[in-house]
Amino acid sequence: MDDITSQKRSRRGGGRDARRSARQSSSASSAPYLVRKIPPVDMLSDEACEIIEHNAETVLEEIGIEFRDDPEALAILKDKGCDVDGERVHFPRSLARELCKTAPSEFTQHARNPERSVVIGGNNTVFAPVYGPPFVRDLEGERRYAKIEDFNNFVKLVYMLPGLHHSGGTVCEPVDLPVTKRHLEMLYAHLRYSDKPYMGSVTAPDRAADCVALSKIMFGDEFVDQNCVMVSLINANSPMTWDDTMLGALKVYARAGQGCVISPFILSGALSPVSVAGTLTQILAEAMSGIAFTQAVNPGAPVIFGSFASSISMQTGAPTFGTPEPAKVLYGAAKLARRLNVPFRSGGSFTASKTADAQAAYESAHTLLPTVLGGVNFALHAAGWMEGGLVADYAKLLLDADQLTMMDSMAAGIDISENGLALDALRETGPGQHFLGSSHTQANFETAFWRSSLADNTTFEQWESEGRIESEQRARNRAIKMLNEYQPPEIDPAIDAGLRDYIATRMAVLPDSDY
Amino acid sequence: MDDITSQKRSRRGGGRDARRSARQSSSASSAPYLVRKIPPVDMLSDEACEIIEHNAETVLEEIGIEFRDDPEALAILKDKGCDVDGERVHFPRSLARELCKTAPSEFTQHARNPERSVVIGGNNTVFAPVYGPPFVRDLEGERRYAKIEDFNNFVKLVYMLPGLHHSGGTVCEPVDLPVTKRHLEMLYAHLRYSDKPYMGSVTAPDRAADCVALSKIMFGDEFVDQNCVMVSLINANSPMTWDDTMLGALKVYARAGQGCVISPFILSGALSPVSVAGTLTQILAEAMSGIAFTQAVNPGAPVIFGSFASSISMQTGAPTFGTPEPAKVLYGAAKLARRLNVPFRSGGSFTASKTADAQAAYESAHTLLPTVLGGVNFALHAAGWMEGGLVADYAKLLLDADQLTMMDSMAAGIDISENGLALDALRETGPGQHFLGSSHTQANFETAFWRSSLADNTTFEQWESEGRIESEQRARNRAIKMLNEYQPPEIDPAIDAGLRDYIATRMAVLPDSDY
Repeated sequence: MDDITSQKRSRRGGGRDARRSARQSSSASSAPYLVRKIPPVDMLSDEACEIIEHNAETVLEEIGIEFRDDPEALAILKDKGCDVDGERVHFPRSLARELCKTAPSEFTQHARNPERSVVIGGNNTVFAPVYGPPFVRDLEGERRYAKIEDFNNFVKLVYMLPGLHHSGGTVCEPVDLPVTKRHLEMLYAHLRYSDKPYMGSVTAPDRAADCVALSKIMFGDEFVDQNCVMVSLINANSPMTWDDTMLGALKVYARAGQGCVISPFILSGALSPVSVAGTLTQILAEAMSGIAFTQAVNPGAPVIFGSFASSISMQTGAPTFGTPEPAKVLYGAAKLARRLNVPFRSGGSFTASKTADAQAAYESAHTLLPTVLGGVNFALHAAGWMEGGLVADYAKLLLDADQLTMMDSMAAGIDISENGLALDALRETGPGQHFLGSSHTQANFETAFWRSSLADNTTFEQWESEGRIESEQRARNRAIKMLNEYQPPEIDPAIDAGLRDYIATRMAVLPDSDY
Repeated sequence: MDDITSQKRSRRGGGRDARRSARQSSSASSAPYLVRKIPPVDMLSDEACEIIEHNAETVLEEIGIEFRDDPEALAILKDKGCDVDGERVHFPRSLARELCKTAPSEFTQHARNPERSVVIGGNNTVFAPVYGPPFVRDLEGERRYAKIEDFNNFVKLVYMLPGLHHSGGTVCEPVDLPVTKRHLEMLYAHLRYSDKPYMGSVTAPDRAADCVALSKIMFGDEFVDQNCVMVSLINANSPMTWDDTMLGALKVYARAGQGCVISPFILSGALSPVSVAGTLTQILAEAMSGIAFTQAVNPGAPVIFGSFASSISMQTGAPTFGTPEPAKVLYGAAKLARRLNVPFRSGGSFTASKTADAQAAYESAHTLLPTVLGGVNFALHAAGWMEGGLVADYAKLLLDADQLTMMDSMAAGIDISENGLALDALRETGPGQHFLGSSHTQANFETAFWRSSLADNTTFEQWESEGRIESEQRARNRAIKMLNEYQPPEIDPAIDAGLRDYIATRMAVLPDSDY
């Protein structure tokens, strides 16, 4: 990964090496991504996978997928052998799977700080924050529309939080900026206030192109041409439909060799069948159609098989989270993605709750643990998600991120080295004694147990004497403290000026509109 | 199970059949226990198990286990071939495992309502409430010492909560009653205010004998002699020590053919090595020694391999909960118990938090999900546990119990019947349409998704208009409502009089003391 460094230095000059080493020594040390050493939970047998795969091919062939308002997409797919009837694309049995074969099974998404680059796929899991909320619960706990200041704050916090490996994309919608211009300031925030990998805009093809252009200013043209520096979220308009906005952004990114997260967006019962296996069939068909299309556009372009799946209350129609059926969809879709040999995105820390109360935490944990145990490779919404995705919550961002830090230990499995087995410690201590002072404990205590940075494990009396502060308020206080202490990562001033120049030029020509 | 009915009728007379059918039609319908159809999470390979089993035999043979202040126990074990040195019992390699072989791999614990009987072992999971707290957080949210009124309230709530299969034991310590007499009123509450299975007292051998006697009044002498109607909690005094109190209760129950939960009580780092594999070695050695002893006392007596395992903060010494290392201990110990072919007890809904806040829920979920995924057969503390076990919390009892109800769906796995696969629903609906009105949705929506009885999935606006009530307060309000609506299960008045007579007789002779 050192070629970024040398390329940038020769291109822009300036002592970046020295600044980087200064920066790195001061930033929070954390693994750049999670490496799972435990086998994934297997809730769908090989035979069941074969049936669902057969049925997904039936959906692709017989029912077909709509590719709407994008004649070029239809032409590309027709050229690859699809039967196109109006906007309905029928994939002859096994064609989509065949097209998917050029997709890489794993790929590196480079960060501007090479130590933050992530490998997406295989046994790795990358955690990214919440994506898309128009509202925030702010540092006073009030719910209001999100602003660019909030966006910048979230990027800064995510930069500092060791549980999050990725800066994400639209961590909240800065509704105080025109829709036409938001993407420029959002991408600038990711590039300037963090050095973790990030996502690009998908709301219009020219905005995707802006994100590629800004990334080239940061990484250099050649580096971006040859490497993945962005992954971006391409949602299906489920069921079985792709629209021109998403297809347009997809084409920009795929042609630029940048990553696309091809994500069926499922509220089961409304946007898919009310059953887990039926939903899995649809997800597989939709994901394969989108991945096949990326590979038709640019064979070898990095993709991620995505799945956002929740269910709805069949009594009220409201989306629900942290329930068992979406967890089963996750386990099943993860296995189907592994069998397709592509990276998998799903999960997160979902809740329908309005505050970071017990409901929020139960529901989040019941999404997050399947995320890790099921073998998700890229987990968007891993921290900060609130109220069905309408709200990005400062307190919950920190609470969730704290939980994420425990997953390294969980995913590492059980150490059965001689030190792990600790037979000598049992011999040394013996019946009725305690192990606090044993040489094995002394040698291992610093790393033996995961430790929450936000949990209160003190006595009731101590907790009471400190003001009976519950976890949500502790997290909010911590967020305020972290933002006060925030130090931006170093940036080459020439690059920063280049980014601002590009943004100013684009701002001057883009209209102020809200679509 | 109908023999209870006929036996009771012939013994006491009275139209119990009619009363039971009236009662059953009005009580909450719920499965008597969870049947897991998914394979357990496998975090410890067979090879790793063999190493740990070898090391546990080394502990049993070389280090030995203390059996304190109980000469009879030493004599029994010596007679079975152990080397007894003072109070230190050395089990020649493979002797303990050999003695464990007479333990049943699963057994039925009968409830007075046969529909509530539970099968402990195999692919089943039985959820029981918190055990042991001296404090409650009450219906006003205040923390105070527990009273017998609280105990009765918890038994009533557990009776009504469908997520809980078992009435438990010391759901809280009624500290307003003398220690010498508490067990009588506690057992009466389980027998009178619930019809779910229950646990007996273990604080002294004569109190265990009282529990057997009271059970015989309820079930009939012959039935209790021939069947398991109680399981009781025998904690090790870890590391590698059994004390006379626990051994005394164990002998009473094992001789009466009643179940014992043989539970190493581990705060890893203090009471066991600081590593997962070392802790597993000790747990296996301790559990095997206790199970072997029960089988030496009465071959075939029902036992459960127990494991209470948490870790401590190596900074403060405080116990911590919901962390990854105890979850790994659970996964490993569950597999070791399966290999020993005995039922396994572990897990629950643990937390160190002082209120039912986000910390409480995260930590509880990170214990509960491993409990189900790891294949626990008997889960004590599955609801209501707070503050490291010092507090039984009315609100958290309801919140946790609500979570328990989702586990049926989780553990059922993925339905791949033709109805589950729903290919016709995909055909009927097609691209761009919604599934709400499809015939498949209409046929399945009532049972398709688990539904929380306490989560709020409404809009922010509706939630706000209803007073911004968070989940803890919702649960507390629900507890108050449930207690107001509580209706006790029917009981034969002659049996009730028999129970009260026995209790009065014993109360008259027992001293009022606090030990």
